[in-house]
Amino acid sequence: MEADGRIKEGLIEGRNAVIEAFRAGRPIDKVYIQDGCQDGPVQTIKREARKKDVQIRYVEKERLDQMTVTGKHQGVIAVAASYEYASVEDMLKKAEDAGEAPFLILLDNIEDPHNLGAVIRTANLAGAHGVIIPKNRAAGLTAVVAKASAGALNYTPVAKVTNLARTIEELKEKGLWFVCADMDGTRMYDLNLKGPIGLVIGSEGEGLGRLVKEKCDMTAAIPMKGDIDSLNASVAAGVLAYEIVRQRIMEVRK
Amino acid sequence: MEADGRIKEGLIEGRNAVIEAFRAGRPIDKVYIQDGCQDGPVQTIKREARKKDVQIRYVEKERLDQMTVTGKHQGVIAVAASYEYASVEDMLKKAEDAGEAPFLILLDNIEDPHNLGAVIRTANLAGAHGVIIPKNRAAGLTAVVAKASAGALNYTPVAKVTNLARTIEELKEKGLWFVCADMDGTRMYDLNLKGPIGLVIGSEGEGLGRLVKEKCDMTAAIPMKGDIDSLNASVAAGVLAYEIVRQRIMEVRK
Repeated sequence: MEADGRIKEGLIEGRNAVIEAFRAGRPIDKVYIQDGCQDGPVQTIKREARKKDVQIRYVEKERLDQMTVTGKHQGVIAVAASYEYASVEDMLKKAEDAGEAPFLILLDNIEDPHNLGAVIRTANLAGAHGVIIPKNRAAGLTAVVAKASAGALNYTPVAKVTNLARTIEELKEKGLWFVCADMDGTRMYDLNLKGPIGLVIGSEGEGLGRLVKEKCDMTAAIPMKGDIDSLNASVAAGVLAYEIVRQRIMEVRK
Repeated sequence: MEADGRIKEGLIEGRNAVIEAFRAGRPIDKVYIQDGCQDGPVQTIKREARKKDVQIRYVEKERLDQMTVTGKHQGVIAVAASYEYASVEDMLKKAEDAGEAPFLILLDNIEDPHNLGAVIRTANLAGAHGVIIPKNRAAGLTAVVAKASAGALNYTPVAKVTNLARTIEELKEKGLWFVCADMDGTRMYDLNLKGPIGLVIGSEGEGLGRLVKEKCDMTAAIPMKGDIDSLNASVAAGVLAYEIVRQRIMEVRK
């Protein structure tokens, strides 16, 4: 479980560094502020902390002097919980260790942190070995993502790759099949989704990138009866992930 | 489609009425403000509008005088989109008109508006005839719900009932079977989910109310492999709704 999105505690010291961390959406557990500090930047930090529901503790200067690593705390130290990215190799190893065919979920252009968190949660419960997101145009592993994942981020590895299409190419060489979700595809029940598989989900607005779609071996459609265009991206990922789970379970049964 | 959560345009006139509407979370499409109005309440309205991404239009007093119904606009008129609740009877009629067995989704204690919106969206695409929520402790049909439903609120009726357990009782007399989602249930693939059905989903934190659970005929479990407790409520609703869709499709096929 070495690289599995584990939490690394870190101290962020100094006013600007803490403000920056808040603004970058880094997950922060707690902020220590020196008693009596009231200046502008400290007010900003208090406001950000309240906005993000982060605990504030007011302490004596001596306490901060004990905690500091840099020696330059300026009256403010934040405790950060940073989630680390895993590598795709870690995921394949995880599958191998479990004696299971690899099952990965790839997200193209999903920028909403609630959706990313919900997909990581689904990946965990559906038994997927990891979630892969592209470096650009994806939500980072922020506190919102961690919260929306309901703890799954501590167990299910997330990898960030430079080029999703190239990663698909490389994984195909390792024996994985890729299925993407799209309305114009084959009904998901009619596809063979057993074996080593990568499930590719696009964003709600723009769908899948053309290049990514072309790399996929199959296109799966969720049957739709209604008046609107598409399911919420994390719901679509859940429905398709569980079709894979169903086919895997039914195969074992035979 | 008479009562199907349709949008009723309405004007909200006067500073306090508009501020109240924002604070109550009513869906507002647009706010007209008289050019030059700068007082406190108008500033509050501008702030609320920006916070909720509502369009502001600055107009001459004459324009507001033309729009007003009450004659007391005080320089501010908001255009509200209010979604109307449907009745459970409407949903049964909708099923009957379509020649389909009724398929309803009931939400117990789902307070998160994003989840409610996502479930309405799933209901629409999975071909459910409506969504039933309890009067107390449920998210209302606010702008956030409407947005998260991606337009499905215009098509899929939502009913609010006083007592969910009693509604289940009444619908059972009309021939519906009820299945609730719970980890300790029977694996969903092993249940017969065809025919007239109500799918009952509880909140993530508290699960289903005891009384509601007792009224259900079946308890369905989504197979779970992972380290955490439960799927996001709207993902769970999606996975179970689509198991119902699958069983209905497969039955037709035979």
